[in-house]
Amino acid sequence: MSAPVPDLPEPAHANVDSMLSRRFGKEVANYFSGSPLNRVSFLRPDHTFLSTALKHPSAKFLLFNKLEPLIKSPTELGYVTYNDVRSLIEGDPFMRTEEEIIKEYKSTTHIPQLIFLGLDESQEGFVYKNHYKGAPHFALDVTPQKTSTAAAEALIHSVESKGFSFSKARMQATLPPPEAAIFAEARHLLDWNARNPFCAQCGYPTLSVHGGFKRTCPPRDLADNVASPDRPPCATRTGVSNLCFPRTDPTVIMAVISADGKKLLLGRQKRWPPYWYSTLAGFLEPAESVEEAVRREVWEESGVHLGRVIIHSTQPWPYPANLMIGAIGQAIPGGEDIHLGHDAELEDAKWFTADEVREALRVGTSGLGEGPGPEYKEGGLRVPPKTAIANQLMASVVEGFLSGDAKM
Amino acid sequence: MSAPVPDLPEPAHANVDSMLSRRFGKEVANYFSGSPLNRVSFLRPDHTFLSTALKHPSAKFLLFNKLEPLIKSPTELGYVTYNDVRSLIEGDPFMRTEEEIIKEYKSTTHIPQLIFLGLDESQEGFVYKNHYKGAPHFALDVTPQKTSTAAAEALIHSVESKGFSFSKARMQATLPPPEAAIFAEARHLLDWNARNPFCAQCGYPTLSVHGGFKRTCPPRDLADNVASPDRPPCATRTGVSNLCFPRTDPTVIMAVISADGKKLLLGRQKRWPPYWYSTLAGFLEPAESVEEAVRREVWEESGVHLGRVIIHSTQPWPYPANLMIGAIGQAIPGGEDIHLGHDAELEDAKWFTADEVREALRVGTSGLGEGPGPEYKEGGLRVPPKTAIANQLMASVVEGFLSGDAKM
Repeated sequence: MSAPVPDLPEPAHANVDSMLSRRFGKEVANYFSGSPLNRVSFLRPDHTFLSTALKHPSAKFLLFNKLEPLIKSPTELGYVTYNDVRSLIEGDPFMRTEEEIIKEYKSTTHIPQLIFLGLDESQEGFVYKNHYKGAPHFALDVTPQKTSTAAAEALIHSVESKGFSFSKARMQATLPPPEAAIFAEARHLLDWNARNPFCAQCGYPTLSVHGGFKRTCPPRDLADNVASPDRPPCATRTGVSNLCFPRTDPTVIMAVISADGKKLLLGRQKRWPPYWYSTLAGFLEPAESVEEAVRREVWEESGVHLGRVIIHSTQPWPYPANLMIGAIGQAIPGGEDIHLGHDAELEDAKWFTADEVREALRVGTSGLGEGPGPEYKEGGLRVPPKTAIANQLMASVVEGFLSGDAKM
Repeated sequence: MSAPVPDLPEPAHANVDSMLSRRFGKEVANYFSGSPLNRVSFLRPDHTFLSTALKHPSAKFLLFNKLEPLIKSPTELGYVTYNDVRSLIEGDPFMRTEEEIIKEYKSTTHIPQLIFLGLDESQEGFVYKNHYKGAPHFALDVTPQKTSTAAAEALIHSVESKGFSFSKARMQATLPPPEAAIFAEARHLLDWNARNPFCAQCGYPTLSVHGGFKRTCPPRDLADNVASPDRPPCATRTGVSNLCFPRTDPTVIMAVISADGKKLLLGRQKRWPPYWYSTLAGFLEPAESVEEAVRREVWEESGVHLGRVIIHSTQPWPYPANLMIGAIGQAIPGGEDIHLGHDAELEDAKWFTADEVREALRVGTSGLGEGPGPEYKEGGLRVPPKTAIANQLMASVVEGFLSGDAKM
């Protein structure tokens, strides 16, 4: 049986009437988007802001152990308070300015990764400069490591004894969308920091700054040699280097329509359950437009030649760092023959009628590890759940997108 | 005076009539997209393919010295042949399998970075497996470095004596679009390889494989210690790590329309020429949808609150690694007050009438370093040239996008 599908998020102002919404319809807000947090990104370099937010009674901390989030239940994240984390983070890592922290950098001291996620403006709480308001949200990596092993283990023991647990499950099936969006931000940033402890430009250890949204390559390291702690010059210290900032990988995912507009192209990988198909997808490559990436991926994976491509909606996907860019493309007349021999990625690709897809959306949706709904009949098409943008793209097409009945 | 603006590219199949193009109009193909090359990405691990393509008489090599491309003139790239580069690349770097190369890896030997860009199918040339055809295109970094300094200097001297030169100019103003797209792919990949000589996960040197589209962290390095060259384990060697693949940074750029649909919001940075404005833009953050990033950036930079956002078209931007995602967003009623106090990025942001923007697109377009056209009158609005997606977004809006007269 399929798990209950959480309602999808309503984007802020989604229902405000506007010329854009009259022309294109209501915005499709995909799962993992719709965060209630204001990231106030421009305040991240302000250590007074971070320090005050950290210690405010309304502050909430989402803990991760080896990238597994702390939960109360599969439908609720398990937040803890400043008092719970105080010992692990040694009081206040934002007490000093970034300049001071960089100056006293010592790579052998492990600093547990802390991320400032944003302010939940719907919750009473903190006020900064009379303008920025809400409950501060942080994420904290409590994976026992190096010099902070003992404090991390104590914190894990303490929260588990309160009945919380670290979830091994992928969270997209069960969390309410606003919580899922907070989880996604936290997971994406913790993963990025964990993958980048060294500078890819010079090979030396790096340091997290800007509330976890930037890594810097310090010019000296007190662990190296107390008499002469200076490191060789590194290009990431001069000018702006994208290596210092979190990485997000653009991915294209596309509902492909036949030249006559009546059929949909779907594909399947070998490891998927029988009859389970989805829209084609792949990573955008350097110096490609999204439209070109859609045409290239569809040709490489299925041999089908596309003409016009339009972009439908997008979805953050924090496993580990993707931006899913949902598109709709149409095959050119004569370009519909399927050839799986270019790239070996798909086991099968096939044209389905709108009726087949419509029925699958009604009875055959589920996550990869789950069974289909009760009305599903063996042998019928199975497709991803509503929390996947693939489902939203298919739905948009079969509900009359081309005729203009369904908007984006 | 403004430089002549190259015609924008026509995407493949742009003029094929389809239900999508009837509904949304002809696809906007932005500058740097529209590459004539088929990347045949699935052939990159095939060293026989790469080796044969490399030595084929139709193969073309685009050289870069410190990321500056070799040109014949500002409107023409300067390609050289296999014979020209043979000595620098020591014959054939694709002779051995990737497995063999990784096994014999020695970090102290400098291997000049070579990229397989793709096959130009419009040119007679190479045929592989009776199926993949065209002139192979490669990019090669000839910056004199370490063990290859002498060979690189000899090559540079030889091509300069033929009248070619390395261009210090940004190429977007002058190259014909198909050449610009090839340049963009080459620059993006050379820059990515140059920024990532070390593994961000473990700090050890990495090795370019897959024709320049992947970097791997070899398990042993013959430079370390001939008796025991094994390195410590690294997570990028197990499973798939995005660190091994080129990075592309999604960036949002948006034409913002007032609630009544009659005005356009533009902003300017302090360092820009007087009267020069453009659409707002900024980097997408981890776990944001494009639609959310557009609303966040507009609020952070201008204080304006947006409702519905739709995505218009995209543009690769190889300085160094951006994907510009062009959007159109509409302010909510009452959300149009400008406040520059959140983020300090803009010197000014202002609502312009459609007539002002239309006139600027007619007489006031230019690159940042150039003067406006001859009909421009001092004090009038100046805006970016057609090669910038900002220009295409503004044009789409003022040509009647909201009313449906101008399609996407």
